[in-house]
Amino acid sequence: MLKKDDYKLSVIIAGAGSSERLCNKSVKSKQFLLLKDKPLLLYSVEKFLLLENLLEIIVITNDIDATRELIGKNKLDKNVEFKIVLGGKRRQDSVYNGFSNLNPLCDLVLIHDVGRPLFYIENVKQCIKKARETNAAILAIPTVDTLKKAKSDNDELVVDKTINREHIYSVQTPQVFSYDMLASVYNLCKNDMEQITFTDEASMVELFKKPVNLVIGDRRNIKITYPEDLCLAHAILNNELEIESERIPA
Amino acid sequence: MLKKDDYKLSVIIAGAGSSERLCNKSVKSKQFLLLKDKPLLLYSVEKFLLLENLLEIIVITNDIDATRELIGKNKLDKNVEFKIVLGGKRRQDSVYNGFSNLNPLCDLVLIHDVGRPLFYIENVKQCIKKARETNAAILAIPTVDTLKKAKSDNDELVVDKTINREHIYSVQTPQVFSYDMLASVYNLCKNDMEQITFTDEASMVELFKKPVNLVIGDRRNIKITYPEDLCLAHAILNNELEIESERIPA
Repeated sequence: MLKKDDYKLSVIIAGAGSSERLCNKSVKSKQFLLLKDKPLLLYSVEKFLLLENLLEIIVITNDIDATRELIGKNKLDKNVEFKIVLGGKRRQDSVYNGFSNLNPLCDLVLIHDVGRPLFYIENVKQCIKKARETNAAILAIPTVDTLKKAKSDNDELVVDKTINREHIYSVQTPQVFSYDMLASVYNLCKNDMEQITFTDEASMVELFKKPVNLVIGDRRNIKITYPEDLCLAHAILNNELEIESERIPA
Repeated sequence: MLKKDDYKLSVIIAGAGSSERLCNKSVKSKQFLLLKDKPLLLYSVEKFLLLENLLEIIVITNDIDATRELIGKNKLDKNVEFKIVLGGKRRQDSVYNGFSNLNPLCDLVLIHDVGRPLFYIENVKQCIKKARETNAAILAIPTVDTLKKAKSDNDELVVDKTINREHIYSVQTPQVFSYDMLASVYNLCKNDMEQITFTDEASMVELFKKPVNLVIGDRRNIKITYPEDLCLAHAILNNELEIESERIPA
């Protein structure tokens, strides 16, 4: 348990992925994609800057210069160090590049996908609190949809089987780990990293039978993958602005 | 394959479920819940009335009088018959009550949850088209989130295991079946209906190794289960109205 109140937090933003499925080839990667005229990356960065004990933000990118320019021209907190790090082949390689560049003073590591700009800082604070208690905590929401495994059959997409959705959660980011936990897990699987593909860092921790806590997130923290997700994100943001403006007396 | 162009379509709307998880105990069931001042039920009904060859709409309810009043006071198509049917113990029992009240002329049966008011009629038409070819077709979207099975451990919610998300789809409604397919499946499992709980009708069809086709739906066709889903639905609707008004020249 990480009891001391002056723990140091490092944030790694995985942002080197392409925006291919978003059909926007003019944008080099998802972090530069505009949502209400603001690049996705800035949504995450601005919210993380609200966190206490923040030591550094490491942004993984496939375009160092463009990310540096984006971060540079937006007035950001001077007390937090920004590192721009080149991504790897897969998402997990990118996050590992971030991990390799961590400040040795860091106690907690928060890992986040740039494709989720709409997380709520209160959920993140709960996740950090839990990770301080247990070493590993991730945001997740219970699955309400029926899930099915599909297969191709004579060029038709058909159901292979229905998955029992009881106790199934959709996992989001941020995910928060103690530095020690993450370091020991990377050390344990360093020889297998090439062979195994993880969709999130928690999977790596689970592989070594170490407990990962689930913290209930918010359904509006959607992952922007397909063009219609951008519409959805746009709608969520507009609604929030509307609620905000309703709160301000005329 | 259902080739004839004058096929008859019956719609069953499962709407007897409570709105408990929505924390709204003043509303008897989800179908009466207001989204932008309109009860959820009317969103679905109004869109289904746009479908060709529509024979009837069967609404399952836990309050016959209230549903009758709601349907009655909104001017609805006179050429389509409305039936209001009392729900059963579980969702599947409710749908079966609807099935038992089908007009014998019907060729295709569309089953829909009232908690999904935001489906797109174009997706539904594709689903009907596919069901006419193959007897069973359902709307689904590929899962983009990492999925985990959770367990309780000393009052903590922790990850049990990560589920391989490859080829996993989140299933929506509407789901469309040929009447003959649905009738034969109900007939096959009539003795086991008490024992087995299905989260959707497609699962029943799958149980008898009959193919169910997946038709890609839209991510905005969300299921309203938790209070934040209402915010999300509100946001999606507002965004559509905005897009609509942008289309109208000033």
